[in-house]
Amino acid sequence: MIKAYAAFEPGGELKPFEYDPGPLARDEVEIAVEHCGICHSDLSMINNDWDMSEYPLVPGHEVVGTIAAMGDDVDSFKVGQRVGLGWHAGYCLHCRSCLTGDHNLCGEATATIASHHGGFADKVRAQAAAVVPLPDGLDAASAGPLFCGGITVFNPLVQFGLRPTDRAAVIGIGGLGHMALQFLNAWGCEVTAFTSSDDKKDEAMSLGAHHTINSRDSDALEAAAGSFDLILSTVNVKLDWNAYLGTLRPKGRLHILGATMEPLDISAFALIFGQRSVSGSPVGSPATMATMVEFAARHDINPVIESYPMAKVNEALKHLKSGEARFRIVLDNQAEN
Amino acid sequence: MIKAYAAFEPGGELKPFEYDPGPLARDEVEIAVEHCGICHSDLSMINNDWDMSEYPLVPGHEVVGTIAAMGDDVDSFKVGQRVGLGWHAGYCLHCRSCLTGDHNLCGEATATIASHHGGFADKVRAQAAAVVPLPDGLDAASAGPLFCGGITVFNPLVQFGLRPTDRAAVIGIGGLGHMALQFLNAWGCEVTAFTSSDDKKDEAMSLGAHHTINSRDSDALEAAAGSFDLILSTVNVKLDWNAYLGTLRPKGRLHILGATMEPLDISAFALIFGQRSVSGSPVGSPATMATMVEFAARHDINPVIESYPMAKVNEALKHLKSGEARFRIVLDNQAEN
Repeated sequence: MIKAYAAFEPGGELKPFEYDPGPLARDEVEIAVEHCGICHSDLSMINNDWDMSEYPLVPGHEVVGTIAAMGDDVDSFKVGQRVGLGWHAGYCLHCRSCLTGDHNLCGEATATIASHHGGFADKVRAQAAAVVPLPDGLDAASAGPLFCGGITVFNPLVQFGLRPTDRAAVIGIGGLGHMALQFLNAWGCEVTAFTSSDDKKDEAMSLGAHHTINSRDSDALEAAAGSFDLILSTVNVKLDWNAYLGTLRPKGRLHILGATMEPLDISAFALIFGQRSVSGSPVGSPATMATMVEFAARHDINPVIESYPMAKVNEALKHLKSGEARFRIVLDNQAEN
Repeated sequence: MIKAYAAFEPGGELKPFEYDPGPLARDEVEIAVEHCGICHSDLSMINNDWDMSEYPLVPGHEVVGTIAAMGDDVDSFKVGQRVGLGWHAGYCLHCRSCLTGDHNLCGEATATIASHHGGFADKVRAQAAAVVPLPDGLDAASAGPLFCGGITVFNPLVQFGLRPTDRAAVIGIGGLGHMALQFLNAWGCEVTAFTSSDDKKDEAMSLGAHHTINSRDSDALEAAAGSFDLILSTVNVKLDWNAYLGTLRPKGRLHILGATMEPLDISAFALIFGQRSVSGSPVGSPATMATMVEFAARHDINPVIESYPMAKVNEALKHLKSGEARFRIVLDNQAEN
């Protein structure tokens, strides 16, 4: 039996929930969960915001743990090896996206917390192909958020061939953005943080920004015209997108990571003059996750976290909802209650 | 003196206009105009739609002619050599865009028909760097439209590394789209034309499309889900952009070439799931124009044109306004009136 925490109805408090996962499939591993990050999408799934939740729903898709058991066909891990698991717990492995290494774009991928029980538990299962070894140099206690928030901001740097000579900017210095600043700084780029207030400047600089721009200061936005090769937007609210497009260099890209519900009211002219792009992407492939954790270990990049014992998951979720988490929350199965 | 046709007020009929161009600048050439295409942007400039017109305004920026004179510093052409000239008659040559070969993105570029007299004339002048040799294999009488309409649709194939194994589609089979179909077919791609009626199917197929989709048939659009790596939109009206995004493959790109005034109401989710991009671009650099005319000559790609004597320019403009030109109009300085 697996001991988990589950929501039993949309928006419900999490309660202890035991389930029998049945026999381990030939291509699966079972992970003994040590740590599991909490992501905003856990909240969205608990609340059934996306109309795809099934209850009891066990959240948790930023898992760090050790291999507890392996299916008969799995020979890519060893029992006891430390690994990570993110948004996807399995892929079809035969569609065009999977065959070209873009597993995260697989239309048949299994989400770790949709029709599948996640990592707010003592154990979680996943297809071996979806599980990524954790390098020794990475702090296991804080690495969890790399596997959803981290890969979400790291993936576009790989996908769009960002160069160390490029200028990059980040909108929203929170759970995703604070990792983006660290990655971009280590990538060699000139890094700018768009912050909503001047008092966040020092924090952004300490995370890797070389410059900050107060995004509520329209003069400052205008003064930054033609500055950036890449802007990563991590916010899920509507912004003046055309003003941000104006801060892109010719051939620059505004890349959307935050699931803003309102349409992006992009001016065709803002794209045409300057050959600019607007794009988006979801998490990343297992190969890109493996690349990310190696890069993070080499550059000592760690999510900044607050830790809660797993048993205090509801308290942790309340803290997340408050918007005051700095910057990610991680549940700890080893901590005392 | 240069003998031209000019508009003397917004929307005005063109009338004969002679002007003294002064001494030829050291970096300029003078082209004896043989043929000049008419582009919709000539109409927009005549009408001052973009609030940047100066009168008398000599339209014409799809020029084919021969080098009549060269400035003292010009040694890249020979007198009598056949050349083409497009939207830009000069660049700053020292900004980052110019220095990286993206002259068409130069913020200081001179538009051939803005604060500069264009090609509805017996002669036109331009910076030598903006002028492109015409290969012998290309039909001079029909090549003019390559230098604005043609380069506009050719440029994105180069800029975004379109591969011959890709699937491409074109929205709007008119002045731009009919050249796009030819280029894409010669590029080796599987080519689909979105047409607004079934009776345009044969024409699209003869221009290079392998398939057509009736864009007014929402079932057909839905059935094409996940089909295309690149869609070129050449129309300047608002479409259901998110429906077209749905027809893109993962990592696909919707590229906007038509200056639609209404914002593109793009769904963030449509970009994020599938890592899709929306982009735009203006004409192309001189190097890309030179590549284009070589490619067009090698593959026998010609704009489909209707020819008018230069003196019947007002009649030709009226035909353009009617929307019935198939597919581009070219003014001929050699034809009898």
